[in-house]
Formats: sequence, structure tokens, C-alpha cells
Amino acid sequence: MLVENAYGKSRVRLVKVSRRGDRHDLSDLTVGIRFEGDYDASYTEGDNSGVLPTDTMKNTVYALAAAGEVADPELFGLHLAAHFQQRNPRLQRVRIDIDQHHWGRIPVGGRDHGQAFIRQGTETRTCTVDVGGKKQMVGAGVTDLTILKSSRSAFAGFLRDEYTTLPDTTDRLLATSLSATWKYADLDVDFGPAWRAVRSTLLETFAEHDSKSVQHTLHEMAKAVLDSVGPVSAIRIVMPNKHHLQVDLSRFGLENRNEIFVPTDEPYGLIEASLVR
Amino acid sequence: MLVENAYGKSRVRLVKVSRRGDRHDLSDLTVGIRFEGDYDASYTEGDNSGVLPTDTMKNTVYALAAAGEVADPELFGLHLAAHFQQRNPRLQRVRIDIDQHHWGRIPVGGRDHGQAFIRQGTETRTCTVDVGGKKQMVGAGVTDLTILKSSRSAFAGFLRDEYTTLPDTTDRLLATSLSATWKYADLDVDFGPAWRAVRSTLLETFAEHDSKSVQHTLHEMAKAVLDSVGPVSAIRIVMPNKHHLQVDLSRFGLENRNEIFVPTDEPYGLIEASLVR
Amino acid sequence: MLVENAYGKSRVRLVKVSRRGDRHDLSDLTVGIRFEGDYDASYTEGDNSGVLPTDTMKNTVYALAAAGEVADPELFGLHLAAHFQQRNPRLQRVRIDIDQHHWGRIPVGGRDHGQAFIRQGTETRTCTVDVGGKKQMVGAGVTDLTILKSSRSAFAGFLRDEYTTLPDTTDRLLATSLSATWKYADLDVDFGPAWRAVRSTLLETFAEHDSKSVQHTLHEMAKAVLDSVGPVSAIRIVMPNKHHLQVDLSRFGLENRNEIFVPTDEPYGLIEASLVR
Amino acid sequence: MLVENAYGKSRVRLVKVSRRGDRHDLSDLTVGIRFEGDYDASYTEGDNSGVLPTDTMKNTVYALAAAGEVADPELFGLHLAAHFQQRNPRLQRVRIDIDQHHWGRIPVGGRDHGQAFIRQGTETRTCTVDVGGKKQMVGAGVTDLTILKSSRSAFAGFLRDEYTTLPDTTDRLLATSLSATWKYADLDVDFGPAWRAVRSTLLETFAEHDSKSVQHTLHEMAKAVLDSVGPVSAIRIVMPNKHHLQVDLSRFGLENRNEIFVPTDEPYGLIEASLVR
Repeated sequence: MLVENAYGKSRVRLVKVSRRGDRHDLSDLTVGIRFEGDYDASYTEGDNSGVLPTDTMKNTVYALAAAGEVADPELFGLHLAAHFQQRNPRLQRVRIDIDQHHWGRIPVGGRDHGQAFIRQGTETRTCTVDVGGKKQMVGAGVTDLTILKSSRSAFAGFLRDEYTTLPDTTDRLLATSLSATWKYADLDVDFGPAWRAVRSTLLETFAEHDSKSVQHTLHEMAKAVLDSVGPVSAIRIVMPNKHHLQVDLSRFGLENRNEIFVPTDEPYGLIEASLVR
Repeated sequence: MLVENAYGKSRVRLVKVSRRGDRHDLSDLTVGIRFEGDYDASYTEGDNSGVLPTDTMKNTVYALAAAGEVADPELFGLHLAAHFQQRNPRLQRVRIDIDQHHWGRIPVGGRDHGQAFIRQGTETRTCTVDVGGKKQMVGAGVTDLTILKSSRSAFAGFLRDEYTTLPDTTDRLLATSLSATWKYADLDVDFGPAWRAVRSTLLETFAEHDSKSVQHTLHEMAKAVLDSVGPVSAIRIVMPNKHHLQVDLSRFGLENRNEIFVPTDEPYGLIEASLVR
Repeated sequence: MLVENAYGKSRVRLVKVSRRGDRHDLSDLTVGIRFEGDYDASYTEGDNSGVLPTDTMKNTVYALAAAGEVADPELFGLHLAAHFQQRNPRLQRVRIDIDQHHWGRIPVGGRDHGQAFIRQGTETRTCTVDVGGKKQMVGAGVTDLTILKSSRSAFAGFLRDEYTTLPDTTDRLLATSLSATWKYADLDVDFGPAWRAVRSTLLETFAEHDSKSVQHTLHEMAKAVLDSVGPVSAIRIVMPNKHHLQVDLSRFGLENRNEIFVPTDEPYGLIEASLVR
Repeated sequence: MLVENAYGKSRVRLVKVSRRGDRHDLSDLTVGIRFEGDYDASYTEGDNSGVLPTDTMKNTVYALAAAGEVADPELFGLHLAAHFQQRNPRLQRVRIDIDQHHWGRIPVGGRDHGQAFIRQGTETRTCTVDVGGKKQMVGAGVTDLTILKSSRSAFAGFLRDEYTTLPDTTDRLLATSLSATWKYADLDVDFGPAWRAVRSTLLETFAEHDSKSVQHTLHEMAKAVLDSVGPVSAIRIVMPNKHHLQVDLSRFGLENRNEIFVPTDEPYGLIEASLVR
């Protein structure tokens, strides 16, 4: 009757300051841990004897962060997963999710300050480590990457029925808050450079593509990543269409020369696809 | 290379007022629509000829809401799914997600007013209709149901390692913001009463259970639903453990007799399980 | 040059469980404390010698909550204010803001359970205690009280200019998420009953009023409170107009008989007024 | 009895794309309008004859944005205020609040793309125009500027009482999400450069200051702005102290060398001050 279960700790917040002389480095992470395994008795009998408390999972994040490096969240995730796997015989599968929040340096007199930081961007670098038995999967991603293009975006020639009122357009604003997740074929990856290569490929393709639809551009972006970033074996992209509606100025005797828009939060189109090599 | 794709419209907001004399009824819904099917060419070629715009999906929600009933979101979802399926030969699977937001009536002079409403509770009634070919699945759910018990909740006898600092407790606060989703075995269900029966079973079991852990109580709640609400064939519950930490008053020479707590948002334990009949 | 300053602690979260046999009571509060006084040297010189840490303010909330009652947030606020005032000679004015979050009891077998609770409503009861020298002001309020009326709401006969496109309407939905704050003439008030009397007066007046505009109804509601709740000496109400737009169904050959609406979050009208006795 | 009233429109969202060949510029604004004046009869009598609808205010934003420039929000605000003042004899005071959301350009092949943009930072540039009779006030600001320094921040030598448990520290993390608002002495200001000068002065002072407390650094930042940015006549800064707590690793036999922190959202210290020239 109990067919699936899992437990863990979410939103473990961690800031690590690494001090090398007067140049400090800052890592700001949110960590999630999820255990699957032989834990049925805790559900059916209330038998906690095999249950590592989620509070201990949290403590482990801090202890391992103190003892080692966290700059590459993928490596820190692998470290955490291996630690839990070695000590918990009931654990069959462990997933570590890490969000890395971006900070830049405050510029002072034209130079980056070594010990003062400013939160940057709305986007988050994500990673997922999924380890079960001898199988280790490492994925990475980016979320809340908010982008907009003001040219080369059309949507025309679509299906029409009696409820269709949308006109064809050959020149609209295309805006999205992109989420992408991808998998690496193996663990022999330089994770930081790989992440930055995927991110810039996504951005450049979005900027340059002659878009016939969100679907069309999403596919081109995913394809470009698989074509140009070797370690990536699969990618999934989700793109909400953050509609920017042209304001009808003709009601006041004015013309809208494709200049004045209302950005809207809801409803939104939601387009998703997965590609593999 | 393109292995999966879907598109649709999210967060279509709809309020319908049904007027029967001086007694009005209010339905406040958020609808999501998701299409899967033979849409590869829209991704790979930018060929929109088979693509029903997500704007049309939105219009369809309003048109069908005007022509028919929306009081039971499950029936409205089935209606929408059938409509889309009949007219879109490329559509292989359509999913409709509906959130129903609760309003009560404002009491005036001891009687419920017929035309004045007050938003109630933080919880949301949800439903999902998933139709592919001749297969129709109807599920329902509740989300953001925030509950707390101040007795009969323990967590003791758990696994300890070198990072475990949590003490055993036999009397703690147990609080959660529950999400549950369940499936009905067939479509021959009186959806409103079934939903209310599941909800009250979840609440009563939570209140009465001698909890040895969140896992233990979650399982008892799921089991009680399967035992007592006939049409439900499977249920999944997710319970964040919204920790309430006892404040250490001994630092000021005071005793905390299990009375003074700090509720915390993060980190939180996250417990999940699925049961089937 | 330094013309104004203040410091304090915000969002001190407190849950107190009062146990009387098998019937427990739950108070869920968020407390803010704000000090004004002779603290200039801490700004200009970094001289902390007169500065009570905000961490101590937080501790004081817990210590006083453990030693006394918190059921009436107004009395707890007065207690906190007096405590701080007596011990901090530099303190010239202290403000305590308390939000009280509503929990009801879970019904089990037709009776309210003594030890199991459910979060209720989206609204929050607020209070403000402002003490300076011998002057003590106590105010109360309600926020996020979301209400809607589906009849007796018009907006017509307004000023028009070349940018006005809004049609007159004699039958629209009127929805708001009301915030009200009021002051009591003195401290000799039974705060719980007074709060409930204001709340029900606001609700009943909203429900019954023949509204010519949000302004008109807001004024009537404020006036009704001053007319019927003796201890209240002044009231301020802020009502966002949460627009519900009629969907234009004529584009699909359907009629909208004032039934189908899109609730919108932005932009919104914002109407405010203060009345005194 | 009616002692104060105001009405207006909030969260009018506007994106303007200015196209100069293949280089487009993007302005992303949220506008609020607030009228005060001779509007008592709309409250007391429901007399709308002098009331400009808030819907018209919204339309006016779009019409004036189409006809003129919006790149400097201060000038656009002055334009809006003058427009409303000229046409509404009952209007005694109008306030325009504008938030400007930052977008950068997507880099492609080492060069900034002319027509593709990426949302930047979490901070928002704000401005307020307040016009009453012949008096015009222009203010500007920045909000949600999230910054952190990992050195030269102390908090020691403060007042202690029986509830004080905070130890003195000479080396803590100092993090805040700063909000600042300032006024210009007159309208003869180059608003863009002035805004950027204030922002960089705030950042540089935060980075370089030997902080004895949040109060101390806040004051130094405000003072530096008044000292170095001529057009600014007054400034108000609000700094929440976003506490980063050192994790106690000694419980696991580890030492925390001021490296491992938990950032917390609540409670937080809140420090505020206003300085004038």
C-alpha cells in the first residue's frame, strides 16, 4: 500500500567566507537533501531507529562546508552524497540540490573591493546530484534568467478556431524567465567553465535567433547547447512566455508604433522541451 | 534528439458570478492547460500551422465558463479537456489543472449575505484532469492547508551520528502546510462531497494521531483516506515540517515549560509518501 | 545635520501555547520594536554605550511572553513598551507593532479539538502601541481583509477627458483587500471585543452599502465604525480596488451577462481616507 | 470628520522600446499616481462629477509615454504631474512615484547586442515627484540594494541588561538590503548622473568604512552623499541588518574560524536615519 516515500531537509542556507589575505571569496548556497531507501517502518510503525534526523542532515552541510570547499556546488553535492551514502546502509538513493546565489564585488576607485560584495542578477545557478548505488548523476541548471528581445520575434500562421482572436504578428517583444536543467555525461567535467559555457550559449542563441515562436527559439537554444558544450548529454528548457501586450493608443487618437507595452504576469504561455544528444 | 515537449497556458484567472435572485454564487478559479502531441515541427521548423495559440486556450476557458457550470472544477476540467481533444487532431494528451479559491459569505445580522463575500483560509482546493486517447484520469487535492498540533507529537529513538545534536522529544509542536493529491478510481464520483470527506479525514486524523514522527502521522492520514473515502484509489501527501523551536529562556534565568516557541521558515524537513489501495 | 533616527527589531516571531488541562490556547504573533531617543552618538561617533542591542529587544519579547499573558496583543504591547521605557533613560519614544495571526480549532466529530489547530483566513489583526514620556497611544487594525460584493456597486457620472475610455457602470464587482487602522480614545478598552466590533461593522457596512464608488463605501464604513464603536476616536482605511474586468465574449458570438470576470493584480486603484470623531 | 483623503492608481506597468536603427533602448517602469484635493464630496455624497477615474490616470501614463521621453523617470514624472495639474482644478497636490527596473544588454561575441536584454540586479531605481501649487519637489532613491562586507565590521561596547546574551564582536559579516531616498534642492539637475553618483558613493562608503555598528556606517554613507553629490539636499537611509549567524561547529568538534554562517530572514534589526545639509 505504501508505494513511494522520501524525506529530507530543504532550504539549508549557507554562506561561506574564504579569507585569503585581504581578498575574500563568498559562497552563498541553499542546499536541499532528499533520502530514499528502506524507511517504510518509520511510516507504518513509527519506528525511528533507522532514521537520520533532518536536523543532522543540516548539521552535516555545515560540518562538511567547514572542512572542505564549496565553490563548485557540484563537487560539494557529490561530497555530501558520498558522505550520507557511506554512513546510512538503509539509504538507496540520495539527491542533493544546491542553488548558488550570485554576488559580485563592489567597485571602489575603479578596482573590485576584496571584502565588499553586491548581490547580482535575479538568476540562480542550480545543480542536482543524484546518487543511487554505484550510479552517480550530476546535473546543473539556471533558473529565473529573465531575458527579452525586441526584434526578430514573430508568431504567425497558427491554427485558428472560433475562439481565436490573436492576430498574426511578425514583430513582437519576446520575454521569458528561463529555467534550464542539463545533465553531464560523466563526472569528468570542469563544472564552473561548463556552466558558464551553457549560459552564454543560451543567451547568444536567444539574442541571435529569428524566432517564429517560443517553441522554435527554445529548441534552437537547446540544440546549440548540445552542439557546442561537449560534456552536456541532455537538456530541458522551460520558458514561460511573459506576454508584453501592445497598448491600444488609437482610443486616444495616438498611434502605437510598436513602442508602448504592458508587461503582464498572468496568464502566461508555458513552453517546455527536452533534447538529448 | 527532441524527446519530449509540451505547451500550454498557465494562470488563467476566472471569477464567475451566478445570480439566482438575490443569492449569488461565486467561483474563483485559476486554470492551467497543457498540450502534448504531434507538435515537433513547431519546435524544429517553426511550423505553427498545427499550433493552437495559448491565447485561444485562455479564450476557451472563458467561453466554456460562460456557457456551462464551473462549480465543480473536476467537471469543468473534463469539459475543457473534451473540447480540446475533439478539435485538435494533433493533441495526444491534455492536462487541465484547476485551483479553486475559497470565499465564504459575510454574515450580516446573523445571516449569511447573498451578495457579499469574504476570502477564507489559506488553503486551496485543486484538481487535475488528464486525458489521453480514451483514458481519462481525474485527481483532486488540497494545498497550503496549514495545521498545528500542540500535543501527542514525539520524535525520539532516531539514528545518531557525530553530527547529531537534536535531543529526543516526547512533546513537541507539530506544524505543517500540507499538500495532498489523490486520484479517483473512476469518474462516477460526487466530487464536492468526496473532496470534503478527504479534507475532514485528513484533519481529524492529524488531530487525533499519537505521532511518533511526521512520517508516522502522514502515513496514518493517507491510510485513513483510503480506508474511509471509497472513490479514492491513490493518495500522495507532502508535509513540510514547519519547525517551532523552543526558546532557551534559561539564559535569562527563566524556565520554558514547553510554552514559548519561534516558528521558523527555513530550513524545513520535507516528508512525502504515496499510498495506493 | 542628523535630523531623525530610530532603530529596532522587526519580525520577532512568537508562538505561545497556553495549556489548561486538555484545552490549549495558541497565540501566534509577529512583533516589531522601534526606539527613538538620545542615540545620536551611536550614529555620529559609533558610540554604542547607550545602545540596547536589537537582539536584546528580541530576547525581551520572549522573556515577557513567558512571564505574562499575550492573548490581547494591545496589553502585551503596553507591557513591552513600559518595560523598555523604565530601563532605558535615553529612550524618548517606543513603538511596538504586533500582528496576530488567526488559528481556529480543527473540528473532530462535531466538536472543536482542544489541541489541534488550523490557520484561518488571510487577514491579520494588528496593533500599535506608541509611548512617549507620559503619553500612551494604543491603536488597532486589520490588514489583508479580502472582500467582494457582487451587487449594489456602481461607478458612473465621473469626470471625462480625452484619455478616458472607462464606461459608466451601475452594476460591477467591487473587491478589495482592506487595511484599516484605528485609535482608541484611552486605554480603558476591552480590546478583544472592541476589535471584533470594528471588524464586523466594517464587513456589514461593506455588504449593505449602495456603493457609488470605492470612496463612497470606504467613507460609509469608517463613519459606521465611529458611530457604533464607542472607544474608537479615529480611523484610517486604505482600500485597493482589485479590479475584476468583464471578459468581452462578443468576439466569440457570446454574451457576457455580467457573469464572467478576470481578476487582475495590477494596476489597481488605491483609495484612502482618515476620519476622526 | 473626514480629515484626510487621497486616491490614485498604483502599479501601472510600462515597457517602452525606443528604436534607433538596430540599437534599441528599453525602459521598464512601474508608475504610481496619487491625487489629493477637493474630493470630499466623492466620499461623503458619492458625487463622482469631479473625480478623474484611476483608469484614466493609467491611460494618461501610456499616452504621455508614447508622445515623449521616459528615459529619465524624474522628467517623465514631472511631465505627468504637470499634465494632471493643468487639467484638474480640484487637484491640490499630485504625487508620482516611478520605479525603474534595470536591464542590461546580452553580450554576443564580445559586443553588447542592440536588441536583446537581460534583467540585472535586484535593486530598483526609484523617484518621487510631488507637486502642490507652485511647489515642485523631486526626489530619487534606490531600493533592494543588497550588499555585504566581510571585514571591518564590529559591534561591541553596547548596553547590557539581564536579557542581553549577544557577545561583543570585532569581526562580523555586515549585510543589508538598503533603501535610500533623497531630495534634490531644485530641478536643475542632470538626474541620471546624479543618481549614479549617489549610488556609487553609498557603495564605496559601505565598502571602505570601519564600522562600529549599522548606525555608524549608515550615518557615514548618508554624510558622504551630502558631502560629495552637490544637488542632494537631504537623504534618508533605511538599513535592515540581515543577520548572518556564525554556526556553532564546536558541537561536532570543529572550529568555526569566522567562515561558516547562516543567513536569516527574520527577525532583523532595522536602522534608519535622515540627514539634511
